[in-house]
Amino acid sequence: MSTIFDRILDGDIPCHRVFENDHVLAFMDISPISAGHTLVIPKERKAKLHELSDEAAAELGRVLPRIARAVCRVTGTDDYNVLQNNGRTAHQAVFHVHFHIIPRPSQTVGLGIHWEPIDGVPDPAEMAERLRTALAEDQA
Amino acid sequence: MSTIFDRILDGDIPCHRVFENDHVLAFMDISPISAGHTLVIPKERKAKLHELSDEAAAELGRVLPRIARAVCRVTGTDDYNVLQNNGRTAHQAVFHVHFHIIPRPSQTVGLGIHWEPIDGVPDPAEMAERLRTALAEDQA
Repeated sequence: MSTIFDRILDGDIPCHRVFENDHVLAFMDISPISAGHTLVIPKERKAKLHELSDEAAAELGRVLPRIARAVCRVTGTDDYNVLQNNGRTAHQAVFHVHFHIIPRPSQTVGLGIHWEPIDGVPDPAEMAERLRTALAEDQA
Repeated sequence: MSTIFDRILDGDIPCHRVFENDHVLAFMDISPISAGHTLVIPKERKAKLHELSDEAAAELGRVLPRIARAVCRVTGTDDYNVLQNNGRTAHQAVFHVHFHIIPRPSQTVGLGIHWEPIDGVPDPAEMAERLRTALAEDQA
């Protein structure tokens, strides 16, 4: 499925480019929720984070702090959120992996977060064990 | 400044460990907002993402999709948010870099996001240029 980010990567749609290398492209969000709101995407075309290759993910991880540093310097705030959504229920709108870097210059500008710890989650020891098993099977 | 995550890394406080290598530790969030809510932290002790070294950040990036895959498999949902907060204004509570992986099994469980595009942001072309300049200076 082709997304608007595919078309940006293909050069069919322009963007305000911040950074580009062989693996990563960063550009201004077209509908920012604060000044300096920047998107960082892999050139690897995957919809969700868990689908990325090790190589694409490592390169994405490597450049995120560099781009965040530039955003901090230019916006003059070093408070910010990094958000990456997967799936429509989780607020994903474009089905190509993207990290938002969203400056948070004040309590009222930027990402609003609703955070509510819940009861009744599975036993954490058991959950951790199941995750370790899943990771081990993934690496096998 | 020592944080609770330093004490976990030092082995002074237990955690429900999901994954560990030379650079990264992942464990269950002690106060989850959905079942499977997992934290991924670098062993490098930095408060905010933009302070991380290339090496620590690349390794963190590399393992994030692997841990997300395990979370998807175990929870049975592949909708989830990845969130990393920097600064008190941006909801950071522990001043050691950490990525939350938060399953979003339904509209009412998991991360609530308030998203409001704003008017009056700087010209995106100018902002992109300033960011490119800042990145170039950082790499020089």
